[in-house]
Amino acid sequence: MRLSQLFTKTSKTIPADETAKNARLLIQAGYVYKEMAGVYAYLPLGLQVLENIKQIVREEMNAIEGQELIMTSLQQKELWEKTDRWDDEKVDVWFKSKLKNSTEVGFGWSHEEQITNMMRNYLNSYRDLPAYVYQFQTKLRNELRAKSGIMRGREFVMKDMYSYSLSEEAHQKFYDIATEAYLKVFERVGLGNDTFLTFASGGAFTQFSHEFQTVADTGEDTIYLHRGKKLAINEEVFTDEVIAQLGLQRDELEKAKAAEVGNIFSFGGTKSEQLDLYFIDEDGNRKPVILGSYGIGITRLMGVIVERFADDKGLVWPMAVAPAKVYIARIGDEEEVVKAADELYEQLTQGGIAVLYDDRDMRPGEKFADADLHGIPYRVVISSKTVAAKQLEIKQRRETETVMMEPQAFIEKLLCL
Amino acid sequence: MRLSQLFTKTSKTIPADETAKNARLLIQAGYVYKEMAGVYAYLPLGLQVLENIKQIVREEMNAIEGQELIMTSLQQKELWEKTDRWDDEKVDVWFKSKLKNSTEVGFGWSHEEQITNMMRNYLNSYRDLPAYVYQFQTKLRNELRAKSGIMRGREFVMKDMYSYSLSEEAHQKFYDIATEAYLKVFERVGLGNDTFLTFASGGAFTQFSHEFQTVADTGEDTIYLHRGKKLAINEEVFTDEVIAQLGLQRDELEKAKAAEVGNIFSFGGTKSEQLDLYFIDEDGNRKPVILGSYGIGITRLMGVIVERFADDKGLVWPMAVAPAKVYIARIGDEEEVVKAADELYEQLTQGGIAVLYDDRDMRPGEKFADADLHGIPYRVVISSKTVAAKQLEIKQRRETETVMMEPQAFIEKLLCL
Repeated sequence: MRLSQLFTKTSKTIPADETAKNARLLIQAGYVYKEMAGVYAYLPLGLQVLENIKQIVREEMNAIEGQELIMTSLQQKELWEKTDRWDDEKVDVWFKSKLKNSTEVGFGWSHEEQITNMMRNYLNSYRDLPAYVYQFQTKLRNELRAKSGIMRGREFVMKDMYSYSLSEEAHQKFYDIATEAYLKVFERVGLGNDTFLTFASGGAFTQFSHEFQTVADTGEDTIYLHRGKKLAINEEVFTDEVIAQLGLQRDELEKAKAAEVGNIFSFGGTKSEQLDLYFIDEDGNRKPVILGSYGIGITRLMGVIVERFADDKGLVWPMAVAPAKVYIARIGDEEEVVKAADELYEQLTQGGIAVLYDDRDMRPGEKFADADLHGIPYRVVISSKTVAAKQLEIKQRRETETVMMEPQAFIEKLLCL
Repeated sequence: MRLSQLFTKTSKTIPADETAKNARLLIQAGYVYKEMAGVYAYLPLGLQVLENIKQIVREEMNAIEGQELIMTSLQQKELWEKTDRWDDEKVDVWFKSKLKNSTEVGFGWSHEEQITNMMRNYLNSYRDLPAYVYQFQTKLRNELRAKSGIMRGREFVMKDMYSYSLSEEAHQKFYDIATEAYLKVFERVGLGNDTFLTFASGGAFTQFSHEFQTVADTGEDTIYLHRGKKLAINEEVFTDEVIAQLGLQRDELEKAKAAEVGNIFSFGGTKSEQLDLYFIDEDGNRKPVILGSYGIGITRLMGVIVERFADDKGLVWPMAVAPAKVYIARIGDEEEVVKAADELYEQLTQGGIAVLYDDRDMRPGEKFADADLHGIPYRVVISSKTVAAKQLEIKQRRETETVMMEPQAFIEKLLCL
């Protein structure tokens, strides 16, 4: 994308009504637009980051035999009454409205009930199991306060997966596979070192649920983590008993603020019983299907990545999620400079490498500041000096030193990454 | 995808509460699930069709310099009051709710106001223009009745594009380019011959808007079309004066029922004035930005494709939007048959050709019926007979005759399509 074409602009003004670093930087860089508190639009570069994250998650979910679908935002009251989660006293984040005939409807803040109810059409026999389904859904939650930027929104994107299994044993096996897939996702988006499989409170059915917590100053949770074992315990279940149960020692655990980027949960047969999802087993017995749910907050993950890596110059994107891998800063408009910059842009783009090409008529310092604010992994300067030397001047986003490299070598390096 | 893995099932039972052919067939084939009237979930194969349509639209919008973004469902009352479209008396399809602090919010049934208001942050000078932006958005509309299946939903996907131009002349030029891009989209999804650029009523600013109407018995509009000139006039503006103005003759026009699949509209500067979107021109004058809007109903388009091509055996997908190009019906489970079918499946999949592989333990007649109901362009039968002959038995969805072809020739043919 040529920056002369991109409609968004960067801004030096810090948004006055934003306390969250992630939203401040994303707004300044033109990645998101704030519609109201906790409600953000994703502009071209922001949308590209989201799509990059979604694609990584999609690949990992498909690899464990997840099947993608998309449910609806509009939800039936009757369904949620069956699990006693319609009442505002029970669930305090509902947005509700009415059809023209006065039927009450809700807007999806979660989709377990809806998907499980739908599955009654498809899962009837042991031959139909297991089934693993997931979606990327825009969730609507009527949060009382929304002050964490895109880390806790009233409207946000979540990947939610549901597993339907024959038995507790089959469920546990998939649950462990899903755990591994989640760790791969966080590794691939660049948060592997900072994300911990965390024991948190379970429900009626299990002692624990599992969270994936990324260490972050702005996180809403407190965890006690073991770096070596890559495990953590959420404060809510941090007792001597639990520490011992997990084979840990209190004094080897590190207390940290963290943000929950994923959550997996076993329901046993409870929700299936409430919603009447049964199957006939090999011996002809009618049994409730065993349910698990597996969430990743996609927009939240993007916010956590911002918080984790950004510095005082702006955003810093890990390569895998960056909206462009290279920022070409063209300095000057001499014919040979334009030609060299255009050529590099074409070659990289044709090689499938996304580029932000700063072809605007601006001072070098402004371009460098914008390159930093955008957080693009590689900045390439092309000027009459670099053209004369038949080299590119390259700087990685987190480095201060530049290196000179021949164009062909740089292109090959990127194609191999 | 192996059908033994796919969680959806086909059904012979015609959904009792569906009057629309598109929804009946899509439900029977397991492509969609009806949550409530006008509200459908898209299951794996249905989602794949949607994504195929979206990708075609995306390519054509990018080709005319559209920049993709995603706005929000939650909308501010204040914004819609500025254009006098908040009141339920003025717009009767709003879903509304309230934040915890009692602030009223609406759920996006359209996004012109929101995007135009946002653009005040980015479009200030003639240097910032033009800008073309689009999104694929889930729209929520509180329709009184919803009886047309996925052709008119309470929750549906629309591609909406907005153009921001310097002047009427610049706007008109883009409007014509967008018209051509729209015709390409309908051509590519297989509706080229049946879709007509249709003159319909304009607004305060223009005499006409333009619709793209596809001939369909279940359409809600009546148009008068000229097959040779690929033009039509919507009944709402069908007068002697308009016929003459367009250089047509009444007796060369054919009356037909049609479904609106796209709509483009010029707003002039009106909406920009209401929402305060002005720019400074080269001479330092403050002028309203000229706005155009360009919609394509993505889910509706899918419904129209179903209605247009389906026959008494089920769905019929044009190649470009089909969720799989090939349906492999494996007959029998002899080792050589399984091997041949597995091999073809692997080869096609690795060549990037989506396949539905019917590896289930079912009678041939059931597999053939499912192949037809799913509407996959090519059905390939692999049995001990075809393996012995070193051939594949191939039938196109609309044909009744089968042809024999060597596997390699078939694969090459598909890769070249």
